[in-house]
Amino acid sequence: MQWTPRNGAAVSELRVELPHFQRMSAQPRLPNEAPRRVAVVGADTLGASWTALFLAQGLEVIVTDPDALAEARLRHYIDEAWRALKVLGVSSHGSPEHLTFTSDLARAVSRARYIQECTPSGPGKRAVIEQLDALTPAEVIIASSSANTSMSVLQARCAQPHRCVLAEACNPPHLMPLVEVVGGQLTSAQTIERAMRFYASIGRKPIHVRKEIPGNVANRLQAALYREMAHLIDQDVLDVRDADAAVCWGPGLRWGVMGPALLCELGAPAGGVHHLLEHLSGPMTALWADLGSPALTPPLRHRIVEGIRSEIGDRSREQLAQERDGLLIGLLRLRARLSRKPGRTSRVSPRRARAKGKRTEGP
Amino acid sequence: MQWTPRNGAAVSELRVELPHFQRMSAQPRLPNEAPRRVAVVGADTLGASWTALFLAQGLEVIVTDPDALAEARLRHYIDEAWRALKVLGVSSHGSPEHLTFTSDLARAVSRARYIQECTPSGPGKRAVIEQLDALTPAEVIIASSSANTSMSVLQARCAQPHRCVLAEACNPPHLMPLVEVVGGQLTSAQTIERAMRFYASIGRKPIHVRKEIPGNVANRLQAALYREMAHLIDQDVLDVRDADAAVCWGPGLRWGVMGPALLCELGAPAGGVHHLLEHLSGPMTALWADLGSPALTPPLRHRIVEGIRSEIGDRSREQLAQERDGLLIGLLRLRARLSRKPGRTSRVSPRRARAKGKRTEGP
Repeated sequence: MQWTPRNGAAVSELRVELPHFQRMSAQPRLPNEAPRRVAVVGADTLGASWTALFLAQGLEVIVTDPDALAEARLRHYIDEAWRALKVLGVSSHGSPEHLTFTSDLARAVSRARYIQECTPSGPGKRAVIEQLDALTPAEVIIASSSANTSMSVLQARCAQPHRCVLAEACNPPHLMPLVEVVGGQLTSAQTIERAMRFYASIGRKPIHVRKEIPGNVANRLQAALYREMAHLIDQDVLDVRDADAAVCWGPGLRWGVMGPALLCELGAPAGGVHHLLEHLSGPMTALWADLGSPALTPPLRHRIVEGIRSEIGDRSREQLAQERDGLLIGLLRLRARLSRKPGRTSRVSPRRARAKGKRTEGP
Repeated sequence: MQWTPRNGAAVSELRVELPHFQRMSAQPRLPNEAPRRVAVVGADTLGASWTALFLAQGLEVIVTDPDALAEARLRHYIDEAWRALKVLGVSSHGSPEHLTFTSDLARAVSRARYIQECTPSGPGKRAVIEQLDALTPAEVIIASSSANTSMSVLQARCAQPHRCVLAEACNPPHLMPLVEVVGGQLTSAQTIERAMRFYASIGRKPIHVRKEIPGNVANRLQAALYREMAHLIDQDVLDVRDADAAVCWGPGLRWGVMGPALLCELGAPAGGVHHLLEHLSGPMTALWADLGSPALTPPLRHRIVEGIRSEIGDRSREQLAQERDGLLIGLLRLRARLSRKPGRTSRVSPRRARAKGKRTEGP
């Protein structure tokens, strides 16, 4: 089920102006070597956004799509996205020139070491994965952006299912850092690790989702928040405008800068989060029991839509999208500058790997 | 129940350095007139943070607390908070000098036009509200920061209950803009409106919570997200570090810049959110049904605590708090600069009221 409104930025929306910031890189550079080769299968918005990101990170990208108009749309998307990517930091090897387009799937993947599969959701996706599996050697990773079919299903009839993995980003991937990496029953641990390293090496924030569950992680967390928002609107506790404000001027403001668990630790009194959790488990459980289970009935949907219209007021969709993307890009730059890297030891960071002269990451 | 970890910034944590930003005001200025008088009752962290905010906004503040050490702690807190407030923008009338401290409650409230009650949660709070009610004329608003006792209970025995209102902020209020305004059964509509205007006039983002519900709004929205996070950790789908990353590099990143409902509208395809909601209601309902209901058992709490420790790594609590506050302040400045005011017509914005020469807002 492609249920999630993972908000995509339209091509025309990326008018980014951040004159008060110094130009800086929000993404780690790739090693100083010839661009590596990635294939993107499917050139809709999702594929185009992945392509723009890969190009900006200095990769060589071969995109394939059977649609006769796909190439023009793709190049237009990349031109628009490039402005945002320049603000966020383009690799010294990064160039839109490193894009090749072909309608021939076999040709597209013939020299790729990593495949980002971005074809539309639906029954055809499984056949695409199987075709990619038949066309490429076993060491090539096939990463699928599927949100509604599990990797276990997609890979079931592949000859080399171990290298197939799900890699789902929030839209658009060239702006949103989270990538959920999910293996199917037949995916190898090495594939998971290689995929995680690859996304980390291009400035993404990959997480390993260890079990296949409906909606994966980001969709479920969104759904949990939406459900209580819908409940409060349904119960006439809040209008839509105030529900939005409650998130983005309240807890959501903090979630834009740090994860909820770390924030709890910092918010806990001297005893730390251990005592806090002990103290809170009773009241928290009581509150959990009181959270709502609304039904998305036509009247409630109507109220939400009317509330959004009222909140938007006289702003155009384009103005709003510019506001969102300008803020998002500004926040990404801020995070890149002020967030210290967490003390991961179990995963090799690209910078550390490069410092050691190793090249463990990447496809 | 004081269940929520609304993360407070400790006094020592506000080492804010944002040299790459131009200095600018994140908060609307107050009219060019003599400071107005607010009383803060209770000088713990919450009261101290409100006090710092009021002072920065050019108000004259009288703080009262029976604790002999309260005044020194308060002045120290304000000194520390002032650095952050200067970055966010201090009114031309704003000064820590406009603070008066007294341990005499009656004296403190004798000339105040607005009271921010910040005494500790517990059975004593009701008596404090009743005392404030007995001490002050009917036009003085008594705003309580209670999170665990409803305003209807707190005001029940007051002689002038109509002017009592709940005003709950996320911690610390001088950084976190959201203020939840909740009336009790006997609170007048005029009091709600005056409180909303007052908080808007000092740069806060007040919302009107129309019904008294356990936890109010921000706590419930947090709890909804925490529940699914705890479920995913409990089910071994994610570790704590990845659960945090899933929020703050995924949906939470967007919630830091815009409300979820507006984001849905922008993320919807051309048909707009109307069609999106229609299309999604089935899958969304299915996903809601699949969300977890974890029990905060000792083993799960232990896992969460250990996960947080591992995520923190070698960072000190102070470093983490500096990171959080630096990012939060940077994001607030970004929002102040790039967020267009929503097209509210039903509420008078401070700027518009001033432009008309009216003075409708304020206590």
